[in-house]
Amino acid sequence: MNQMPTPFKDQTITKLFNIKYPIIQAGMVWVSGAKLAAAAANAGCLGIIGAGSMNPEVLELHLKKVKTLTDKPVAVNIPLLYRFAQEQIDLSLKYGIKIFFMSAGSPKKYTQYLKDKGCTVVHVTSSPELAKKCEAAGVDAIVAEGFEAGGHNGRDEITTMALIPQVIDAVKIPVIAAGGIACGRSIAAGLALGANAVQMGSRFVCTKESSAHDNFKEMIRNSKSGDTKLSMKGVVPVRLLKNKFYEEICALEAKCATSEELVSHLGKGRAKKGMLEGDLVEGELEIGQVSAHIIDDPTVAELVSELVTTYAKAVERL
Amino acid sequence: MNQMPTPFKDQTITKLFNIKYPIIQAGMVWVSGAKLAAAAANAGCLGIIGAGSMNPEVLELHLKKVKTLTDKPVAVNIPLLYRFAQEQIDLSLKYGIKIFFMSAGSPKKYTQYLKDKGCTVVHVTSSPELAKKCEAAGVDAIVAEGFEAGGHNGRDEITTMALIPQVIDAVKIPVIAAGGIACGRSIAAGLALGANAVQMGSRFVCTKESSAHDNFKEMIRNSKSGDTKLSMKGVVPVRLLKNKFYEEICALEAKCATSEELVSHLGKGRAKKGMLEGDLVEGELEIGQVSAHIIDDPTVAELVSELVTTYAKAVERL
Repeated sequence: MNQMPTPFKDQTITKLFNIKYPIIQAGMVWVSGAKLAAAAANAGCLGIIGAGSMNPEVLELHLKKVKTLTDKPVAVNIPLLYRFAQEQIDLSLKYGIKIFFMSAGSPKKYTQYLKDKGCTVVHVTSSPELAKKCEAAGVDAIVAEGFEAGGHNGRDEITTMALIPQVIDAVKIPVIAAGGIACGRSIAAGLALGANAVQMGSRFVCTKESSAHDNFKEMIRNSKSGDTKLSMKGVVPVRLLKNKFYEEICALEAKCATSEELVSHLGKGRAKKGMLEGDLVEGELEIGQVSAHIIDDPTVAELVSELVTTYAKAVERL
Repeated sequence: MNQMPTPFKDQTITKLFNIKYPIIQAGMVWVSGAKLAAAAANAGCLGIIGAGSMNPEVLELHLKKVKTLTDKPVAVNIPLLYRFAQEQIDLSLKYGIKIFFMSAGSPKKYTQYLKDKGCTVVHVTSSPELAKKCEAAGVDAIVAEGFEAGGHNGRDEITTMALIPQVIDAVKIPVIAAGGIACGRSIAAGLALGANAVQMGSRFVCTKESSAHDNFKEMIRNSKSGDTKLSMKGVVPVRLLKNKFYEEICALEAKCATSEELVSHLGKGRAKKGMLEGDLVEGELEIGQVSAHIIDDPTVAELVSELVTTYAKAVERL
């Protein structure tokens, strides 16, 4: 692992997860498997396997593989609306996962179940009201994720800058800031807002160890500000790169299409098509606003080293 | 003025404007006249008279009044789409204004005119591409304002967290971060992102010296997260509190109303009706997402003292 001493003062989350840096690599569909999670863990962060795009057989492969790549803490992210959620939880427990990042559903559903098994439970939210419910349900920490984040988003469209102080004042448990964080400066900003740690998604998509297709990564590197948009609000809001699929959704929305028509056009497998298989035209390309600022494709080790160094410089400016 | 030493390391903007703290009180329609601008200036910030809601006669009253209330630097904000822009500029020059915050139009229009008269020119932008154009036009500094800000917004919906690093990397001139900044922690975050100063709007609306109606200020203090929305996207995007007027706009948009129909329903004087006259039902109530986090109505002096103290604490955490 990186031998640099840590410049991060707040050790709340590093102690909770037994990691070196208060940096979490987000669990994301199609792009964050065992390889990325292990690389993040080996670099001193918390790595997360994104189980939202894995049936139980595939998840099991990743759970086995990650143990061969790292002995450091790795978590699993399970979107609760996913029909295999229970199997995924039990498989993860079977393979020794002790940290769970739950999203897209009620914190009351599995929190106690996991806590009873000695696990650490984190829940992803997008509002201070939901954060309070998570705390009441007994979670150990909260990810507060702003409007600028890639993928599925909250309906209130609260940005990270506005959200984090509100969530911190609403709860007593640790808070992890997410959305719009992709460099040392924005890590410093997230912690300055009062968060105990930060989570990054899009930035880790563009690394050698991510399973994102090269086409997708290249499109991210070439993207400019304004190239992502929160779309499909009539179904479930999702932030994605503007491509032909996005334009088709806009055309439907401009004609006041119903949510059934939107779902029908979305069909099945669009995110896999785009993010894993590289179809930039028909695919759904979930990524955050920071895509405009990502211009390289480093290894996770190189990235984390850069993040820690530039974080220290950003803090020194203050 | 506040006798506290300054905890702010970066003196770029304080030297540019000859002020104590790198904090700008935003120029806003209906709420930021001479009284607020003078109070901000006397507290060590840059105060700005928001001329966007003032005909030349009214602006002249404020320009005269502000000189009786402070001898510290005060600026004027002039939205360029306003038909009285030229008269407002010339009046401001006549009354000794040396700092201009221009918005809602091309930086090429008046920048050189003002620079030739020895003035400092700042331009408000919402994207790195616009920021580059401002720099090319010769402005002295840029306000980079994110999606979470109240009032009129850019179409790309880039949040402050994502925007600031992009703008800073795009230009060499000083950058002022705006949008979502309302407490010491978010000031620290804005500066951590690399900005040289911060601008605050909504937070100054809820002060004793603002000319916002008490009804409006009370509604702000009672507001929760998600109570503002970027609306009127078919005309010019504006962030406002959700009230009956907002619901009517939503109903029109749900029926795919044209921009003419939206403009017709907007009519004239809605912002004045709401923000200055206190009609919370029919008025247009422009405010930022941070409204959910504003719960008091201090004097500007009390506010700035609190901001500086909590900023120092936020930095110490890092």
